[in-house]
Amino acid sequence: MARLGEFEFIRQLLAPLSQGAPGAFNLTDDAATVTVGHGCELVITKDALVAGVHFFADDAPDLIARKALRVNLSDLAAKGAKPVGFLMALALPDQISDDWLRAFTSGLAQDVTAFACPLVGGDTTATPGPLTISITALGEVKTGHFIRRSGALSGDILCVSGTIGDAALGLDAAKGAYEALSQEHRQYLLDRYRLPQPRLTLGQALANRDSACLDISDGLCADVGHICVQSGVGAVIDTTQIPLSAAAASVLRTTPAALMRVLTGGDDYELALAVPPANIAATQEHGRKVGVAVTPIGRFVEGNGVTVLDGNGQPLTLFSAGYRHR
Amino acid sequence: MARLGEFEFIRQLLAPLSQGAPGAFNLTDDAATVTVGHGCELVITKDALVAGVHFFADDAPDLIARKALRVNLSDLAAKGAKPVGFLMALALPDQISDDWLRAFTSGLAQDVTAFACPLVGGDTTATPGPLTISITALGEVKTGHFIRRSGALSGDILCVSGTIGDAALGLDAAKGAYEALSQEHRQYLLDRYRLPQPRLTLGQALANRDSACLDISDGLCADVGHICVQSGVGAVIDTTQIPLSAAAASVLRTTPAALMRVLTGGDDYELALAVPPANIAATQEHGRKVGVAVTPIGRFVEGNGVTVLDGNGQPLTLFSAGYRHR
Repeated sequence: MARLGEFEFIRQLLAPLSQGAPGAFNLTDDAATVTVGHGCELVITKDALVAGVHFFADDAPDLIARKALRVNLSDLAAKGAKPVGFLMALALPDQISDDWLRAFTSGLAQDVTAFACPLVGGDTTATPGPLTISITALGEVKTGHFIRRSGALSGDILCVSGTIGDAALGLDAAKGAYEALSQEHRQYLLDRYRLPQPRLTLGQALANRDSACLDISDGLCADVGHICVQSGVGAVIDTTQIPLSAAAASVLRTTPAALMRVLTGGDDYELALAVPPANIAATQEHGRKVGVAVTPIGRFVEGNGVTVLDGNGQPLTLFSAGYRHR
Repeated sequence: MARLGEFEFIRQLLAPLSQGAPGAFNLTDDAATVTVGHGCELVITKDALVAGVHFFADDAPDLIARKALRVNLSDLAAKGAKPVGFLMALALPDQISDDWLRAFTSGLAQDVTAFACPLVGGDTTATPGPLTISITALGEVKTGHFIRRSGALSGDILCVSGTIGDAALGLDAAKGAYEALSQEHRQYLLDRYRLPQPRLTLGQALANRDSACLDISDGLCADVGHICVQSGVGAVIDTTQIPLSAAAASVLRTTPAALMRVLTGGDDYELALAVPPANIAATQEHGRKVGVAVTPIGRFVEGNGVTVLDGNGQPLTLFSAGYRHR
């Protein structure tokens, strides 16, 4: 472990992140107590990130920290939950410096404040391997309002939040692809890869309203496929309706084959929703209120599997069902 | 990730561990819902284990799994909490085989049943580094009954459960130390290192009765020191009163210097307690009822720091304040 020592790291850098969570006992105990609001149930999720798999080891430490927290908050968002707190286990290689830890916790502090989500506990250990961050995020949702993956019905409209494909194109760009891309667009896509926006306010507005929801981490087609499997329906996606950022549209103009990355690349952390037709106007209005576009891109149908239609209404054959880390 | 594939690993091997937790949705959703009993609060803790740091990579996979769960359950035990469920993030190196995963989950299944603690969620990822297991354990305790580290008062009696030092001596023995030890005693100490016993029933019996509690993971002196720091008191330990297993006593007969390992070695996962004198008989009776000895080994005093007395009542100078992983 770094020069600072485990106990000083916790006391100096991590304990300040627990303010606002009295049950965290300033990170001085073996465990924390957590309470949720009256009439609410606890929602809990856990995602781990490994250097070299989920981020670049030389990425800015503050961005690594914020992404690690945000991918977990994104799961809470997809379930309609409001953050309550999080726990973090860090496995730190020897070469991590105190400066790195300071930058890491400083980034984390920004998002702890931004999302009102204090650190309530965790663990720090050495590792002979890569930096590994495991976060458990806690949220609350009114009892019974949790939005499942399994509620989509044939006839529901398939919607997505924000724009799709940016993160995968950003990862490609970081690896040197899309040389014709402007510096501004390149940076935009990279930022989308490095710092996802958990759609918490949108998710909370949708809780108990729409049929099914998840966050798009494995890729649009794979994740819509997850809703289909869990709901016992199929889905049709109209590629011409998929909302693209200006930067992603610019990539597709010069590299049309990158459409496959938009359809199957991961890490966007936008929401995919099954919306009953009667709810579509209200759902889009919720999106407008919180400043996140909600765009219909297809529909759920009887049957199974995800069919993707090109500009001529012809089914595309996908080469990859989705994105899996390594 | 292994040949089985992430989704099949979850479906075939992990989902069965979620039986008994309806809010886990058979591990098919992004998050789980968790409810605690009426009048109870949620207790949550998180410990990560790394191959080569916390266990040997070639240890039996079922024992690795059970230890990873048990060190977390031990934290719940120390707080007086009853297990509700757990989440697990696994970072798996490529060389992990399906057979290994089957043995790992089979061991986990044993303890899921033994401790009535279902798997409610988690994450699986590849890693270029060592196997890393991060577990978040959830428990419940009657509201206000959580036993803090910070409640010890001057005059309280310092007690420990079970026997002390076995795990550290077992680790030494695994590395070839204590050649004169009988095979039976060697195996006993190794088992104590590899498979700790979370003192859940004892902890639950003590909830809201005794002043302070933690589980001994860093080492007897270091952990009693943690109670002292958090409680603003000092402690005196009488080495002649420390309960030893027959195997540990056998090591000390041939290697008296191993007393230092008993005092400072980690991983016993016994409980250290601050017991008001008026409660001592009841606390020991609780121990008898659940079959775990509770032994007074000293007392808490005004001041600070941990003083260790030898057989002549003279203070020992400790060379190491405790055990830190790596």
